Amino acid sequence: MRRISILGSTGSIGVSTLNLIEETLTPGEDYELEALCAGRNAALLAEQALKFRPRVAVLSDASQWADFSERMKGSGIEIACGPEAVEAAAARPVDWVMAAIVGIAGLRPVWAAAGTGATVALANKESLVCCGRSLILRAEAAGGRILPVDSEHNAIFQVFEEAERARIRRLILTASGGPFRGRQREDLAHVTREQALKHPNWSMGAKITIDSASLANKGLELIEAAYLFDMPSAQIDVLIHPQSVVHSLVEYSDGSTLAQMGPPDMRVPISYCLGWPQRHSWSAPPLDLCALSTLTFERPDTEAFPMLRLAREALEAGGLMPVVYNAANEVMVQAFLEGRIGFLDIPATVEAAMMRAQSLSMAFGNDLRHDVECIEQADAETRAQLAVSGEAAHWTAGTQGQAFSRA
Amino acid sequence: MRRISILGSTGSIGVSTLNLIEETLTPGEDYELEALCAGRNAALLAEQALKFRPRVAVLSDASQWADFSERMKGSGIEIACGPEAVEAAAARPVDWVMAAIVGIAGLRPVWAAAGTGATVALANKESLVCCGRSLILRAEAAGGRILPVDSEHNAIFQVFEEAERARIRRLILTASGGPFRGRQREDLAHVTREQALKHPNWSMGAKITIDSASLANKGLELIEAAYLFDMPSAQIDVLIHPQSVVHSLVEYSDGSTLAQMGPPDMRVPISYCLGWPQRHSWSAPPLDLCALSTLTFERPDTEAFPMLRLAREALEAGGLMPVVYNAANEVMVQAFLEGRIGFLDIPATVEAAMMRAQSLSMAFGNDLRHDVECIEQADAETRAQLAVSGEAAHWTAGTQGQAFSRA
Repeated sequence: MRRISILGSTGSIGVSTLNLIEETLTPGEDYELEALCAGRNAALLAEQALKFRPRVAVLSDASQWADFSERMKGSGIEIACGPEAVEAAAARPVDWVMAAIVGIAGLRPVWAAAGTGATVALANKESLVCCGRSLILRAEAAGGRILPVDSEHNAIFQVFEEAERARIRRLILTASGGPFRGRQREDLAHVTREQALKHPNWSMGAKITIDSASLANKGLELIEAAYLFDMPSAQIDVLIHPQSVVHSLVEYSDGSTLAQMGPPDMRVPISYCLGWPQRHSWSAPPLDLCALSTLTFERPDTEAFPMLRLAREALEAGGLMPVVYNAANEVMVQAFLEGRIGFLDIPATVEAAMMRAQSLSMAFGNDLRHDVECIEQADAETRAQLAVSGEAAHWTAGTQGQAFSRA
Repeated sequence: MRRISILGSTGSIGVSTLNLIEETLTPGEDYELEALCAGRNAALLAEQALKFRPRVAVLSDASQWADFSERMKGSGIEIACGPEAVEAAAARPVDWVMAAIVGIAGLRPVWAAAGTGATVALANKESLVCCGRSLILRAEAAGGRILPVDSEHNAIFQVFEEAERARIRRLILTASGGPFRGRQREDLAHVTREQALKHPNWSMGAKITIDSASLANKGLELIEAAYLFDMPSAQIDVLIHPQSVVHSLVEYSDGSTLAQMGPPDMRVPISYCLGWPQRHSWSAPPLDLCALSTLTFERPDTEAFPMLRLAREALEAGGLMPVVYNAANEVMVQAFLEGRIGFLDIPATVEAAMMRAQSLSMAFGNDLRHDVECIEQADAETRAQLAVSGEAAHWTAGTQGQAFSRA
């Protein structure tokens, strides 16, 4: 019997997690639900809470409170509202947490969950990118551990032989290449929001889909992999694999390369985390390699997609540079989704933000023992700087990718 | 410090094993060589023995004895001759044995080695195909174990999670498809020995190369996989993968499929067995998926290549039927190599031999606890029958694949 909390229950990862729990676990026997937390989807959170009956259901967005509390009336389920309530819910002692809040909003809840000693299935990239090894160490110190939900890191986790760490030559993260794979840099100047949102393989949220199109998602994953598996940048490669079937690989120095494959379905890594350290059978779609017929691999084009190169630079710079990379990207993706900037303004602005951060020596160094306040400050400073420069970014949007070098 | 013996030291597996030992282990510190055994290559065995200085060097072929003993004169190394001497050498207590004798000649030496409690790196397919689970159980009872050297089984071994056995959906053996992949049955009637010996990826001995061309090799591997991993025929699939990069896969019922990949180089699985339970670094060629660019997968054509279907039938029939399959194939491959029969006579004759064996109820049943005498008798009977039918086979060679149904 495990106590389970789900942070970000109304997003695609949260919904899939609840579906898998429903299919493979028996309530009251295998598990009890402690907390369900969501951002702003009051209707779905209420529906989930009434069905799965957690001890507490928390909505982060206070503006939806009236609607949410109305829907939950008479349920007997404790409800709460606001980011602090989400953080408090994440801090409740449980055995297993799905941490699937999107963006930097996940930072404090993940940090709280890691402190409980729970097994934390981590789908929130930003918390790991920003906290670095300190998040892993915090979870381990509390007697828990971080399990990667991202399909790539989950793949590596499945074939990473800890005892053979010294014989690992490379981690190889695969990337679908997104909707703009094969395009030259100049072709990317006028791509639209709608084009960027059409991911060829995965069905995901808007932020992560744009990140897939720019390879920022793979950049964040490169940083994550370094922290999760305690491997240097030089030993982590990225390979474009448009079919998204080989989810990632570990190459050993004895000539063997191990890979995890599967259909592009997030339920596979979620179920692995849910079952860990055992596997759980479920109605998983089979992998039909004959039907797929062909798997292809190519080198990423870091000229056309600079977010990958910038991520490596942020990782190698160390300190809080990954926080700046992440914050600048998050702001610019939002601006792109709102139609305020062009696609190439995303990497140009992120690079400018990183250059500025470096010139200001924003508390950088190779000390990865960040605390959350320090991270939030670097995050806020980066965002504030971009807000100030917002007009310039807007003004230069038509010049595509020159925003900050000109502004 | 491990005591090591190499059975079949002058074949390609034996030579690679010695090369790896030389590269990765220090004599007198990491290992001592107990025995080197070879078939008939007196010159190479003598050269190896003088260089690696085993306690005993044994040549199976008595006709080469004069040459061999002359070469070894004054070496101070014990030498011996004949199949019984090979079996006796294999029975010497050691920690690790490479069992790489080709064909049914490997049966008694492997059986002897398995009885010593050594870790037996098994490259001889026939002993496992013929002895079945009893070979595995014999090794385990003596405190040792069988490690698969075949690249396919070695791949499965690397990603087979014993604790998750109940959640294994399928083992997937990959096959290059050999030089005749894509050909129709009628195209195979007049293929030559030289065409069959041109394997696209692997450099191997003549017998195994012909077996690759007919898919008999994959048939033997299907039977081996069933015994090695204790899995039923229905849970073992074969997939044609011409690039020989994905060496085999294990599909779990949670949607994950794990695979071992590598360059088509037998030193990779040999080094895995040599190092097991640890990996050993060596100058292994890297796997460059970008350079390979494309991996393809297709279903095997059991119409054109009936040896795969026949292997499954032999496995499912159980008892000594795999012995008959193997013996008939070995005789017919030799006949094909000698230009006495056509390529399609191989499966036709094997099928006829299996039908005859079934009709005679040659001590069949599902009892896999064979003893070696029983296996040798079934093997000899099958060969004798084929010798008697030899003229018929020869006579019908021109009719291609009708040999025994007509004879």
